[in-house]
Amino acid sequence: MFEHITHPTLLLDKQKCLNNIERMVNKARSLSIPLRPHFKTHQSQQIGHWFRDFGIECIATSSVKMARYFAEDQWQDITIAFPLNIREINAVNELAAKVNLQVLIENTEGLQALKKGLSHPVSVFIKADTGYHRTGLSSGQFAVIDELIKGIKNAPKLSFSGFLSHAGHSYAARSEQEILDIHRDNVAEFQLFQERYSGAHPNLILSYGDTPSCSVAREFGAINELRPGNFVFYDLTQYYIGSCELENIAVAMACPVVAKHADRQEIVLYGGGIHFSKDRFTRPDGTTIFGLIVEMQDDQWQILRETSYLKSLSQEHGVVKASPRLFSKTQIGDLIFALPVHSCMTADIIKTYQTLDGEKITMMQ
Amino acid sequence: MFEHITHPTLLLDKQKCLNNIERMVNKARSLSIPLRPHFKTHQSQQIGHWFRDFGIECIATSSVKMARYFAEDQWQDITIAFPLNIREINAVNELAAKVNLQVLIENTEGLQALKKGLSHPVSVFIKADTGYHRTGLSSGQFAVIDELIKGIKNAPKLSFSGFLSHAGHSYAARSEQEILDIHRDNVAEFQLFQERYSGAHPNLILSYGDTPSCSVAREFGAINELRPGNFVFYDLTQYYIGSCELENIAVAMACPVVAKHADRQEIVLYGGGIHFSKDRFTRPDGTTIFGLIVEMQDDQWQILRETSYLKSLSQEHGVVKASPRLFSKTQIGDLIFALPVHSCMTADIIKTYQTLDGEKITMMQ
Repeated sequence: MFEHITHPTLLLDKQKCLNNIERMVNKARSLSIPLRPHFKTHQSQQIGHWFRDFGIECIATSSVKMARYFAEDQWQDITIAFPLNIREINAVNELAAKVNLQVLIENTEGLQALKKGLSHPVSVFIKADTGYHRTGLSSGQFAVIDELIKGIKNAPKLSFSGFLSHAGHSYAARSEQEILDIHRDNVAEFQLFQERYSGAHPNLILSYGDTPSCSVAREFGAINELRPGNFVFYDLTQYYIGSCELENIAVAMACPVVAKHADRQEIVLYGGGIHFSKDRFTRPDGTTIFGLIVEMQDDQWQILRETSYLKSLSQEHGVVKASPRLFSKTQIGDLIFALPVHSCMTADIIKTYQTLDGEKITMMQ
Repeated sequence: MFEHITHPTLLLDKQKCLNNIERMVNKARSLSIPLRPHFKTHQSQQIGHWFRDFGIECIATSSVKMARYFAEDQWQDITIAFPLNIREINAVNELAAKVNLQVLIENTEGLQALKKGLSHPVSVFIKADTGYHRTGLSSGQFAVIDELIKGIKNAPKLSFSGFLSHAGHSYAARSEQEILDIHRDNVAEFQLFQERYSGAHPNLILSYGDTPSCSVAREFGAINELRPGNFVFYDLTQYYIGSCELENIAVAMACPVVAKHADRQEIVLYGGGIHFSKDRFTRPDGTTIFGLIVEMQDDQWQILRETSYLKSLSQEHGVVKASPRLFSKTQIGDLIFALPVHSCMTADIIKTYQTLDGEKITMMQ
């Protein structure tokens, strides 16, 4: 199946991916919370169809370009879950002519750009900061929020949807319990938004998304939309955080072996930072890794009992610290398979998938 | 000049780039050492022409694909400075039919693949490990090297060029003196190769390339080919290593401002890991940065006296820790300009440049 692979290739285990989608769809259904998956991880119209087959109709993207790419494939309800870039207001307006578009603002400049630049209706979320402190307005800034809502309601083309938050600080967790602790604080913050705004806005949407929380938590309080993305593939980071098992990870890089160094028990791959991305993860034991080696058996990758990992990446080289067994069985010209640290970044760089059946899956270019 | 920029864009200061090329060309000439610039940093046929204008005829690439891309633009002497990937032997053979090709091996499997797979002549370098310990054979492995040379000389399509080393450990330096200390050890190692092999091979090439050493050192001992790449642009890493001044850095990202947070003095950019790469640099004071902010004046970026830097990157967001002055003058929708930590990685991701005159420069796709 893999004989023809000559360069670093991102393999996709379609069945694992479908299982990941199904699990999250079922969880959202069992909680009666609408699921609006974030498509920034896979960035693929074909993989989008797999979601559609599970009944998904509403999606999130992280850029205007990505929203346009999915709109071209008949997605009709799209949230651009990134603070409005007012330099793209014309592209936003063009998109609003075609789909039900939700955009995100957190300042008056964003509001003014929408009021001035739109000839088609859009729904507006206000970015809420429920603890991550990257973007958004917190419950301490209700006065600013009140002004924004007033402005939205006064603009003929705009309607107010609610609040959208990303709990990116859940990525600092290192166990399921730590995820749940962070999640509880987020839910409590959302409660404050609900208490203040749901009276005047009975259809208020409180949209929340991060794969760790959505994978692990069962209680979502006032939250009434889930927006995770990474779960479609998961990755090593999610595993170490406590969001998934290694067996759930649906993508792996296949890289040719170009050198072996017995004195260091290292295997050198054609596969570096321009393939994996330079994202890394420092494990509890202090080791920083760029990928974890798995082994192919019967055209499926298997988690190994002993550990071999990517210890460093340069532009095109990857260096594997190999177990004695892996080192001795591996030959020059073999393929080595590695789970990536951050599947979103790896997919974005590689820009194409190959399933274990040999099917090519295209992505946004 | 920059009004039309709507998304993260890699700007190229052509004059700085030309100065960087000229400086390295002149240095190599003054040392009477041939320069074979590595084109993996810029990956652009157009920028290749600028080198040609300075009389450069021989180049290095980091992949077969990149060699093919430059061969299509009339480069006739190309070293693929990456250990032979035997899975690409057919592509190597096709390339060997068209150009003077040098390849790199470090094991018998590589040698056998060349002997079996080539119908066109190629020159062969043996990868030498002169201290970096990523790939290559060290002076402690002369017996293995002897066997490889014998095999090369016995193969009708192969000729032995010499030894090629990359002193990647110079990137661990944090001052000019530390670069020179590492460089001295590399030169001493090369001396051992020369002493053993130059008698039987009077035209032995000892090829050496890393931007820190080639930028700073004046004594190269037996080394008779320089192969640096990054110097064409330089970047923050090179600056902190001690290879260049901030004023020499020839590329900067332009990113739209989407949010400001006064309590944290942070500015949020549309520009994240999928634009800059996730490469980072931890400065001597312990701060990890992903980019350094510069300011545009008269369509040229200026180094600022006070420091504002990219403190974090997620997929599409960048967060700037801003000086009070930068924070107060910056408005939503402005562009922020940032020197990248690692220009090779940033260019590879962005895949296009825009000069300060507005010219688009294409790259290998």
